[in-house]
Amino acid sequence: MSATPTDAEFSLIDRIRARALSRDDVVLGIGDDAALLRPPSDRELVVAMDTLNAGVHFPDDASPADIGWKALAVNLSDLAAMGAEPAWCTLSLSLPRADSDWVDGFLDGFSDLAKMHRVALVGGDTTRGPLSICITAHGFVKPGRAMRRDSARVGDDVWITGTLGDAAAALALRGLGANASLARAHNIGSREEEACSREVLEARLARPQPRVEIGYVIASFATSCIDISDGLLADLGHIARASGVGMSIASDALTASAELRFFFDTDARSTLQFRGGDDYELGFTAPPSARDVVQEVGHTSGVSITRIGAVTERTGVRALDVNGDEVTVSGQGFQHFASDTTAGR
Amino acid sequence: MSATPTDAEFSLIDRIRARALSRDDVVLGIGDDAALLRPPSDRELVVAMDTLNAGVHFPDDASPADIGWKALAVNLSDLAAMGAEPAWCTLSLSLPRADSDWVDGFLDGFSDLAKMHRVALVGGDTTRGPLSICITAHGFVKPGRAMRRDSARVGDDVWITGTLGDAAAALALRGLGANASLARAHNIGSREEEACSREVLEARLARPQPRVEIGYVIASFATSCIDISDGLLADLGHIARASGVGMSIASDALTASAELRFFFDTDARSTLQFRGGDDYELGFTAPPSARDVVQEVGHTSGVSITRIGAVTERTGVRALDVNGDEVTVSGQGFQHFASDTTAGR
Repeated sequence: MSATPTDAEFSLIDRIRARALSRDDVVLGIGDDAALLRPPSDRELVVAMDTLNAGVHFPDDASPADIGWKALAVNLSDLAAMGAEPAWCTLSLSLPRADSDWVDGFLDGFSDLAKMHRVALVGGDTTRGPLSICITAHGFVKPGRAMRRDSARVGDDVWITGTLGDAAAALALRGLGANASLARAHNIGSREEEACSREVLEARLARPQPRVEIGYVIASFATSCIDISDGLLADLGHIARASGVGMSIASDALTASAELRFFFDTDARSTLQFRGGDDYELGFTAPPSARDVVQEVGHTSGVSITRIGAVTERTGVRALDVNGDEVTVSGQGFQHFASDTTAGR
Repeated sequence: MSATPTDAEFSLIDRIRARALSRDDVVLGIGDDAALLRPPSDRELVVAMDTLNAGVHFPDDASPADIGWKALAVNLSDLAAMGAEPAWCTLSLSLPRADSDWVDGFLDGFSDLAKMHRVALVGGDTTRGPLSICITAHGFVKPGRAMRRDSARVGDDVWITGTLGDAAAALALRGLGANASLARAHNIGSREEEACSREVLEARLARPQPRVEIGYVIASFATSCIDISDGLLADLGHIARASGVGMSIASDALTASAELRFFFDTDARSTLQFRGGDDYELGFTAPPSARDVVQEVGHTSGVSITRIGAVTERTGVRALDVNGDEVTVSGQGFQHFASDTTAGR
């Protein structure tokens, strides 16, 4: 930590330090000018950095615990997309005032996720400013085994973990407010069922599960990978462009959660699944010879993994209907600068 | 980079990537979910993270080039205080809008300093939000050689690089505005001399020189080190507390720059030198047996290094006058949460 002399800030740093996990490869953690770490000599170091700003990535009144979880989750998701094993992170916390209750809440969510993946918080800073959380996450990968965006090959299958569209659905329902019931795809199901479905979707938005273990395992055979943060078409587009290939995606192959189906009909679901972001599932490519092992990974992890298309020589990412004809998916992925949505990503 | 789909942001990322230095130990830099790096197997990894927020750490109208320089400088200064050799950094840039002119200016200052120290920018993100810059800097140090705060020993000398108080003087003069001439210690010297002195002080505030090479060299004999960001007494206090010792500092040993002397009399200078922050000089302790070699480091580096006191068994950091009597230094170091100054740190 770069030093900060007020009692208020010391108290915050003490609170943070008290909750940090210890690891054998941390020589010196929070409390000096910098952290001292011992990376394994037979691994490459993987470094991801992502910031969440109030009013942009989460509403101003979001629960501090959810913010703490998500700020770490989006970074671990980046490590997962490389196939890396997480190890350490640093945290820069900008707060309008030294609010120890808020920080304790933040640390509740942050620590829950950090413990799950044995991530040690080793440094960073706390400072005054508009509410903003910046995290740098460090992990390891065997040399040459990281899943990059630039190595998808024509003929590969395209796969996706979990289900898509749930986080975007939660955002859409928030936008509808008290009129959310109007979105119900079929006017059946009890009020309780509606409330319960909404809660599940909200949890998907607030507490995404970074697919760390899956990323680690598929790295041995996947040819490319990305985490779906900005929308399926947008993110697969990054792989396609970087690899100089295209993709065709079968619309009807995308599985939808029961909660998404509860609220939205087929057309609305398609838009949410193709364009919505914030799900933090992994999209990856792998040769057809890997189909059995992918299914096994899904079975072992308890997370469905679905084959949704193929890598093509023709560039661009195309959504195809059940007849193999190209369809247009309306709507936009989340755009950081163009959009004025107050929650997303 | 965690992906970001708008053309505006791509253009920013392209601009940033085009200016990033390359290094052999960077396997994969900007443009994927995370960076892939190859740390040397015989070194510990040193990681520092610091954020600068508009309106807190710099005025809203500060030059983007100065902001770019300083955002990297404060992080390299943390590495210097550990005795580390800088290597890589990641950058998270929050901007109210995708302003490519601003980013180009920022990169001018950032790149000037990055080139000086061979620092490769390997990743990060750009996002919408109040102007804020978060940087994580990575460097290397031989195992066991890092200068920590907790290892100063009773009887050690206390040293300081360069001169202190200049950055705080620039801030003080800004506060006086058009009345800055009133601060002139003696009403002599031309208007040109005044303008020139002010410019030098401003440059010290806007473009601090991280003492990277000095830090690297003194790490072989210094027992502890810190960079002076929050004020001499405050920062030496961190070493004293962490090491369970005290320090006595001779007020008259602190050298002052000609520019500081131009504007401020002895009393005002003392306050600025003991309490002012933002100079990013190094304060360190070393055994008396190292005096000759310290002087040699100062000679070789072209930066004065001054012995200002000693490590004592009695705890606390005391300023002593020429008779060895304890004096009180008025004023406060920069306080991140308590202060409402709009520039500093």
